[in-house]
Amino acid sequence: MYYTIETQDKETNARAGILHTERGDIHTPIFMPVGTLGTVKGIHFKELREDVNAEIILGNTYHLYLRPGLEVLEEAGGVHKFNGWDRPMLTDSGGFQVFSLAENRKLTEEGATFRSHIDGSKHLFTPENVMDIQRIIGADIMMAFDECPPGDALYDYAKKSLDLTERWLDRCVKRFDETQPKYGYEQQLFPIVQGCTYKDLRIRSAENIAKLDRAGNAIGGLAVGEPAEVMYEMISVVNEILPKSKPRYLMGVGTPENILEAIALGVDMFDCVMPTRNGRNGMIFTSEGSINIKNKKWEKDFSPLDPDGTSFVDSAYSKAYVRHLIKANEMLGAQICSQHNIAFYLWLVREARTHINNGNFNLWKNEMVKKLGVRL
Amino acid sequence: MYYTIETQDKETNARAGILHTERGDIHTPIFMPVGTLGTVKGIHFKELREDVNAEIILGNTYHLYLRPGLEVLEEAGGVHKFNGWDRPMLTDSGGFQVFSLAENRKLTEEGATFRSHIDGSKHLFTPENVMDIQRIIGADIMMAFDECPPGDALYDYAKKSLDLTERWLDRCVKRFDETQPKYGYEQQLFPIVQGCTYKDLRIRSAENIAKLDRAGNAIGGLAVGEPAEVMYEMISVVNEILPKSKPRYLMGVGTPENILEAIALGVDMFDCVMPTRNGRNGMIFTSEGSINIKNKKWEKDFSPLDPDGTSFVDSAYSKAYVRHLIKANEMLGAQICSQHNIAFYLWLVREARTHINNGNFNLWKNEMVKKLGVRL
Ligand SMILES: [Zn+2]
Ligand SMILES: [Zn+2]
Repeated sequence: MYYTIETQDKETNARAGILHTERGDIHTPIFMPVGTLGTVKGIHFKELREDVNAEIILGNTYHLYLRPGLEVLEEAGGVHKFNGWDRPMLTDSGGFQVFSLAENRKLTEEGATFRSHIDGSKHLFTPENVMDIQRIIGADIMMAFDECPPGDALYDYAKKSLDLTERWLDRCVKRFDETQPKYGYEQQLFPIVQGCTYKDLRIRSAENIAKLDRAGNAIGGLAVGEPAEVMYEMISVVNEILPKSKPRYLMGVGTPENILEAIALGVDMFDCVMPTRNGRNGMIFTSEGSINIKNKKWEKDFSPLDPDGTSFVDSAYSKAYVRHLIKANEMLGAQICSQHNIAFYLWLVREARTHINNGNFNLWKNEMVKKLGVRL
Repeated sequence: MYYTIETQDKETNARAGILHTERGDIHTPIFMPVGTLGTVKGIHFKELREDVNAEIILGNTYHLYLRPGLEVLEEAGGVHKFNGWDRPMLTDSGGFQVFSLAENRKLTEEGATFRSHIDGSKHLFTPENVMDIQRIIGADIMMAFDECPPGDALYDYAKKSLDLTERWLDRCVKRFDETQPKYGYEQQLFPIVQGCTYKDLRIRSAENIAKLDRAGNAIGGLAVGEPAEVMYEMISVVNEILPKSKPRYLMGVGTPENILEAIALGVDMFDCVMPTRNGRNGMIFTSEGSINIKNKKWEKDFSPLDPDGTSFVDSAYSKAYVRHLIKANEMLGAQICSQHNIAFYLWLVREARTHINNGNFNLWKNEMVKKLGVRL
């Protein structure tokens, strides 16, 4: 796995690149649809490949570890053989879910004990076993196990949390480097910059991570309640330090506007549940702004869902029909809106890439951000 | 709309035919996937057309009348323009739902008043307005409005019910013949034979309906709890009377075995929620028997969902993966099992058709029925 930069934008820190993997090239900036349990909710992999043109998807270690469980995944020969998705897959480390979803979690130097949100069973995640688990899942890109402090953590808490996260990171790296890919194909580890909204902590974290010289680096703990401006400032600070020659992955962010601004700050990879989660609820992102399809105003609008959309669903279905489906809680409504939104996010990052390559990214970005904020 | 018979089987009453419509030919015997609210749950129309090869789908008048409602459907120009399904569509009359779903229903000579199961609003269905409603929905095939007595109705109740249903049928026919297709394309009315499990009532009903000489005829009120043998006897009795030159539609039936036996008795058209409803619950029909994908035995079975299946889902996904999806209550699991099952039902009736045309239907049917009963 290696990264090549095609174009460095002159006006901003945006870049167009390619992350070369054994499962194919990932053209950055890229958006990774979230496939929590080994499925992007409501969308066939065929559609992800052929209609949406997703180049990489994300899975959640916490969820896959609980269901279907490691025994099944190992016997299948890894997640790709299990679910049939043959393009790259990245797994998070489970840290975020342990701290947001699991019950009775207890933090120690060793790791985190928690109870499953499904059956209450007790489990322990450590930096070492989370490496082993991601090896077994068979992720092409594995993430370091870290503590995820709340967005409004005070400085002392944030500092102590980063101390622990850095000790855990060393243990992650050690275990990762001592072990081999499980199924013959390459697996890489991305460390994660933490430090809440404290500049000095972010700088320290980024400097430590830069030294590790891994195949890629991530920025975590943002978009957790802080103002967007603060998030952009943190990204800015961190990206001055993270090596330019490696892809930068901003975890769990965000709105289409967030993504464009972060691209301008030099971020290359994104994931977010928003297009699928909001889609299931009838919120549709388009290049002219967002639509709440439940609104009465769409009841008799028989025009295509999105005349500018790239997915087949955009012309196959009308706004009025999709409104009907979402209002009646029909599965197909969630499928259509999810597929539209993911296709839109992928279109957006492809457009960004084209404009970086054409040298007019900043102008385009500023115009798009204005339009994306409109509520249609 | 007219019906041509290609082959009359020599050993059984099965026939292969074509129902010619303005929206394309329907090759009988045919299965009609149920699209209650103008959507076959979990399946894109593209898949229904290209993967499943559905030639006609069914919609429910009761549901479409409540949501999206007649105003929207009329303004759209009918259900086909509303949902984009360009092949034929049949709507039931709403009678069954009024008697099974709606609340506070009250039966009078005029019709049935009921309260919506969604918002409690009060409505009245009469033979006349149900014709008007189906005209507005824009169904290619409309069904007569009838009372649906319970499966275990005593003779007196069944007879009184049939009396009313026959008076209502006369009013349906009168209204239908006085009105014109709403959107320029042909609409036809199918009357429904009732009479519970009483031979003399079924005979009387079938004789009256045969005289009406409509484009097709239906058999209702079966598979509501009576033994399969009783259902087959009723079909047998009725099909001796219904004109051979018109398609016969057995409403709401049934298992794959039921369908094959009914084809042998001269039935041409079927609908049933079983493939989608049971599919959403992880029950899969195959040519070797049925599978409960939730069973532990499939946990590590990484073989294709159905090696003999005709849908893309059958080879794209493994049993173990689909089990995981269904166990985790993931939408994609319901989508896969529904699409598989509908494709299987369509395959089954196409195979039946081929064997009727090849002159070996009965032999094939008896062997299939044995296999279909197996629980894998
Ligand atoms: Zn390459
Ligand atoms: Zn024809």
